[in-house]
Amino acid sequence: MGSVGLVTPQQMSFSEPLPLKSGAVLADYALSYETYGSLNAERSNAVLVCHALNASHHVAGVHADGSVGWWDNLVGPGKPLDTGRFFVVGVNNPGSCFGSTGPMHVNPATGRIYGADFPVCTVEDWVDAQARLMQRLGIEQLAAVVGGSLGGMQALAWTLRHPARVRHCVAVATAPNLSAQNIAFNEVARRAIVTDPDFHGGHFYAHGVVPRRGLRVARMIGHITYLSDDAMDAKFGRALRAAELGYSTQEIEFQIESYLRHQGDKFSEYFDANTYLLITRALDYFDPALECGGDLARAFAVARQHGFLIVSFSTDWRFSPARSRELVKALVDNRIAVSYAEIDAPHGHDAFLLDDPRYHGVMRAYFDRIAGEGMR
Amino acid sequence: MGSVGLVTPQQMSFSEPLPLKSGAVLADYALSYETYGSLNAERSNAVLVCHALNASHHVAGVHADGSVGWWDNLVGPGKPLDTGRFFVVGVNNPGSCFGSTGPMHVNPATGRIYGADFPVCTVEDWVDAQARLMQRLGIEQLAAVVGGSLGGMQALAWTLRHPARVRHCVAVATAPNLSAQNIAFNEVARRAIVTDPDFHGGHFYAHGVVPRRGLRVARMIGHITYLSDDAMDAKFGRALRAAELGYSTQEIEFQIESYLRHQGDKFSEYFDANTYLLITRALDYFDPALECGGDLARAFAVARQHGFLIVSFSTDWRFSPARSRELVKALVDNRIAVSYAEIDAPHGHDAFLLDDPRYHGVMRAYFDRIAGEGMR
Repeated sequence: MGSVGLVTPQQMSFSEPLPLKSGAVLADYALSYETYGSLNAERSNAVLVCHALNASHHVAGVHADGSVGWWDNLVGPGKPLDTGRFFVVGVNNPGSCFGSTGPMHVNPATGRIYGADFPVCTVEDWVDAQARLMQRLGIEQLAAVVGGSLGGMQALAWTLRHPARVRHCVAVATAPNLSAQNIAFNEVARRAIVTDPDFHGGHFYAHGVVPRRGLRVARMIGHITYLSDDAMDAKFGRALRAAELGYSTQEIEFQIESYLRHQGDKFSEYFDANTYLLITRALDYFDPALECGGDLARAFAVARQHGFLIVSFSTDWRFSPARSRELVKALVDNRIAVSYAEIDAPHGHDAFLLDDPRYHGVMRAYFDRIAGEGMR
Repeated sequence: MGSVGLVTPQQMSFSEPLPLKSGAVLADYALSYETYGSLNAERSNAVLVCHALNASHHVAGVHADGSVGWWDNLVGPGKPLDTGRFFVVGVNNPGSCFGSTGPMHVNPATGRIYGADFPVCTVEDWVDAQARLMQRLGIEQLAAVVGGSLGGMQALAWTLRHPARVRHCVAVATAPNLSAQNIAFNEVARRAIVTDPDFHGGHFYAHGVVPRRGLRVARMIGHITYLSDDAMDAKFGRALRAAELGYSTQEIEFQIESYLRHQGDKFSEYFDANTYLLITRALDYFDPALECGGDLARAFAVARQHGFLIVSFSTDWRFSPARSRELVKALVDNRIAVSYAEIDAPHGHDAFLLDDPRYHGVMRAYFDRIAGEGMR
């Protein structure tokens, strides 16, 4: 198994406006993307990888600055998603902050930076934008769409929104919608950002500041939900940073505090506050059953021609196995071919990013099956 | 079953300095407290109720302003903790913000408001302060100490710190210490408060402001951990506030957001920011096993003469039943008489404040037993 090696992101511009679910329109936008492997002559071996909250088009390989793709352990030559067989595409969603058009870019309609005026995007809007990119890359039909967490929601939405343009859906550590508790965590994070005086109503760019306090708190909250209680106890427990307690309310006493503050600090250096708001809202809104009166099985009736792999992790309390089983049930109710793996892993939601042999074994087997279906 | 009726808080001043676990000393402090029922001639029927994070000495009955005590459903004539039989005492802990000496009071050593300089108190320090109050009230030995959550930790600490001065410990919805995840939630809340520009290093009183943004976020985080995922889904689900989605990152879309913001707003109106820091730290520090090399059973060896009732709730994910079972095991290892009830309740951690018939049945039975032990 090797790395896809040095990768250079590409950029594609779109002049045709993208109509959004909200009724707004995104005009003159560009998408950053990367590709790994080669598109075969039949153009039948393309796999789209969708990213979650804080990731990007940089799925695999290494950038010139040394940064490694976020799913590099899964995607590469000889890896479970084998770039020797598949043409893999990673794309940064509009509204994100890693190269595609987003809140920090200039709104062509006003000549000013979008900021908080960037239109709210939904999972379906992203999928539409991705579909246009596939068209431009000459990919009429994807062999598969893959994603974890929010990326898994996009993979699911592909089968509903563009059923003829994708054959398989691989949705990992995801859910058919957010629970009230999920929304609650998002809302607290958003309030932390929005009420930071440096947010300036979302137009902080003009003030030369960044709402770092809010971003730090948002990221700390997020991190708690990404790890399992047990994984946190195993990794940090009640370990102290110093030999003795300092009896201070503001200084760091426990290692877990040090870890969280570090994660918050790092995040606030690179992530855009408006993007955080937009992406958590896309999570909140995703609910394919809504238009079918809450009947998830009816929502997936359109996906009868697809193959599905659903994967969940035993200690994921953000998107628990029970939520994945809802998806499996809706698919089974439609007599859709679905493979389901519930991986016993200690890491919580973050497990979908980690290199677990059972998890990767399941992924490898499923992609082997896709490859064997005669895409060549 | 009736109410204890109109109650007037009382105040007791202490001139003897209270030595704290940190090495600091609390001088010239006062404690607010309330009592319900009558102390019998033998002074053997006193029960101390310890409060959790945002509660106070106002346990039962009604104040002149109409506010009802936080455990009024449990404490009163004919109620599970029957004030017709027991003399019940509620006391506000030092460092809190409901009448006892705390960060918003003047430091006699400097003539200035304590603010962030109020000494960090531990559960053990509070128990020592409570013991002094009992002494002044003429109570040599308590029939029981009762508390839920952080209050339960104080009840446990009584048996270790003043074993001869209490006969029974009733610890509800509590834990032998905080997990890394528990500490993590506390730390995020603290960071939200401390990084609010209106916090002014904890000396905001002099600036005529309150770090409301931080307090709101802290309370919202807290509320998520008080409720179970299922209870939130049952109460709010994905219900929208308006008939249609507004596609906004900052306006309220879901009912759960409205609820959380309301809770945050209310809390920021009455709770002191420094108190929040102090009390969450007391939670973090509580760890009776620490001085026994992590051996909880050894820690409780001193409590062999006590009776214990431990109660947990099935959906409490803040202090899960597993944490209560750790306590039960440590007691059983010492052959201590312990009753344990794991109540199947949907409400999460908040269940300890609610009027659940099975829960209250267990509490009533245990207090009946104490009453029957010849305290009269």
